Amino acid sequence: MIDSPHPDTPAATMTTAPFVAALRARWAMGRHLCVGLDPLSERIPATFRHGVSPGEAVLAFNRAIVEATHEHVCAYKPNAAWYEALGDEGHRALVATVAGIHEMAPGIPVLLDAKRADIGETNERYATAAFDVIGADAVTVHPWFGREALAPFLDRADKGVIVMAANSNPSAGEVQDLPIGADGEPLAVHLARQVATTWNAHGNCGVTVGATNPARMAAIRAAVGDLPLLVLGIGAQGGDIAGAMAAGRDSHGAGMIVSTSRAVIYAARPDAPASEAMATIGDAAAGLNTRLAAALA
Amino acid sequence: MIDSPHPDTPAATMTTAPFVAALRARWAMGRHLCVGLDPLSERIPATFRHGVSPGEAVLAFNRAIVEATHEHVCAYKPNAAWYEALGDEGHRALVATVAGIHEMAPGIPVLLDAKRADIGETNERYATAAFDVIGADAVTVHPWFGREALAPFLDRADKGVIVMAANSNPSAGEVQDLPIGADGEPLAVHLARQVATTWNAHGNCGVTVGATNPARMAAIRAAVGDLPLLVLGIGAQGGDIAGAMAAGRDSHGAGMIVSTSRAVIYAARPDAPASEAMATIGDAAAGLNTRLAAALA
Repeated sequence: MIDSPHPDTPAATMTTAPFVAALRARWAMGRHLCVGLDPLSERIPATFRHGVSPGEAVLAFNRAIVEATHEHVCAYKPNAAWYEALGDEGHRALVATVAGIHEMAPGIPVLLDAKRADIGETNERYATAAFDVIGADAVTVHPWFGREALAPFLDRADKGVIVMAANSNPSAGEVQDLPIGADGEPLAVHLARQVATTWNAHGNCGVTVGATNPARMAAIRAAVGDLPLLVLGIGAQGGDIAGAMAAGRDSHGAGMIVSTSRAVIYAARPDAPASEAMATIGDAAAGLNTRLAAALA
Repeated sequence: MIDSPHPDTPAATMTTAPFVAALRARWAMGRHLCVGLDPLSERIPATFRHGVSPGEAVLAFNRAIVEATHEHVCAYKPNAAWYEALGDEGHRALVATVAGIHEMAPGIPVLLDAKRADIGETNERYATAAFDVIGADAVTVHPWFGREALAPFLDRADKGVIVMAANSNPSAGEVQDLPIGADGEPLAVHLARQVATTWNAHGNCGVTVGATNPARMAAIRAAVGDLPLLVLGIGAQGGDIAGAMAAGRDSHGAGMIVSTSRAVIYAARPDAPASEAMATIGDAAAGLNTRLAAALA
């Protein structure tokens, strides 16, 4: 805990959480891409859907994606909503997907994008669900209830916690751009600094940034020091990769979990044979990561 | 949609959502209590736990609670975390709990306290999970991504959406008290007004308030007109019921979903026989609702 309420830069933390250490190992190998595993049943290549339930198709497709892409990524990010919408079998597919990543791609962390947050005792149950039932290495959370409420997540020094700060959706600014205090600093930047300076006692925190707003990314990077950034909004186009990577790089020229989902997982024709589909998906991940690495070189 | 960005009071909405209509019917009958169904397996009376799995015990206890309390409540509020922590069987217990409320207490709405929020297409999946898979009548959401992102919830005119504004946990003020703009209005009040004036096109929104801060409750009531308030932080003590009810009442002398969980569901001795336990729980709900109604009379 830091006494100064508004330091210019956060103090170095004493510890590095396993989640952050795993990311750094991948970044050192030039892997910056995070593949979002948010498969919509109807968009899974038909070959994975024949004769199985939606949950089984999701799991089979996810396992094939991990097989095809794990050499090119720093993390995987399943989003809980896509599994919850499938009910029981979606929950089983999520648990099996995470187990499959740990088995097929050991050392590559799994960030459960669940965007949870409640008050303390309830967050203990969410932390149990994310880390112990589902087996994730990190989880995304909302900041609305403040640091103390999130202690059940933050105190899991063995796990990572990515706090929503800036996002890339059209209405994100309605709340995140609100001007705070006398100097009118945007809420997202103010919050990101709070995370870096007072929430990160275990060195296990990160915050989100939107690639669609490099100036905001740069402001948040300046506010959080070398905290990992989860970069959202990098799409198939990738037109702003160079600007985003320049804005978000840390003092070691890395520090970003650059998330994309459909640009990779829907890269193949819906009717492509499995081997062709997975080759296309692997190539999409490799190509995107190569561009990220080049922009950071 | 209202053009004026900061009206003093929100315009009356054209429609009343079924969720809000159901609440008003209960309020008109003098029922203001909302029982939170957040059962921790180990605190369920032993009689419900003999020889069954944790999920089965939760479901049996929930059904008994509904049987014992439904005459005294305006809503039930299962919190998703407590079910998710139990994995598959927790999910099944939640679905069966909601179905049980609809069966045993028709007309009493079920508010799924899931505190979800993501970007648009992902929120479609969360809305499917909350409303269609689980069968809730309303859901709680975080505001961080703004109105447009929440459209999949807000556009479900048949369902209710309760947005986090003010909460009662110790660190809620870290974010919710932040001063916005030139006049320094607290973020929670600013956000609550946004919900009432621009998010509530279908008349299906509400916001949270913390009973521990009646002044903040009153400020939010002034900002939102007759929007339903989900009142948090009323405990077994109930010392501040009168102050909270005075601060939060709407123009009809009601308008609050006053939530409590452990003051009701853990009212009985852990080793009480089932019939005694459920009588105690029913009495706790009746007593608490009577005090709420008296404070509003």
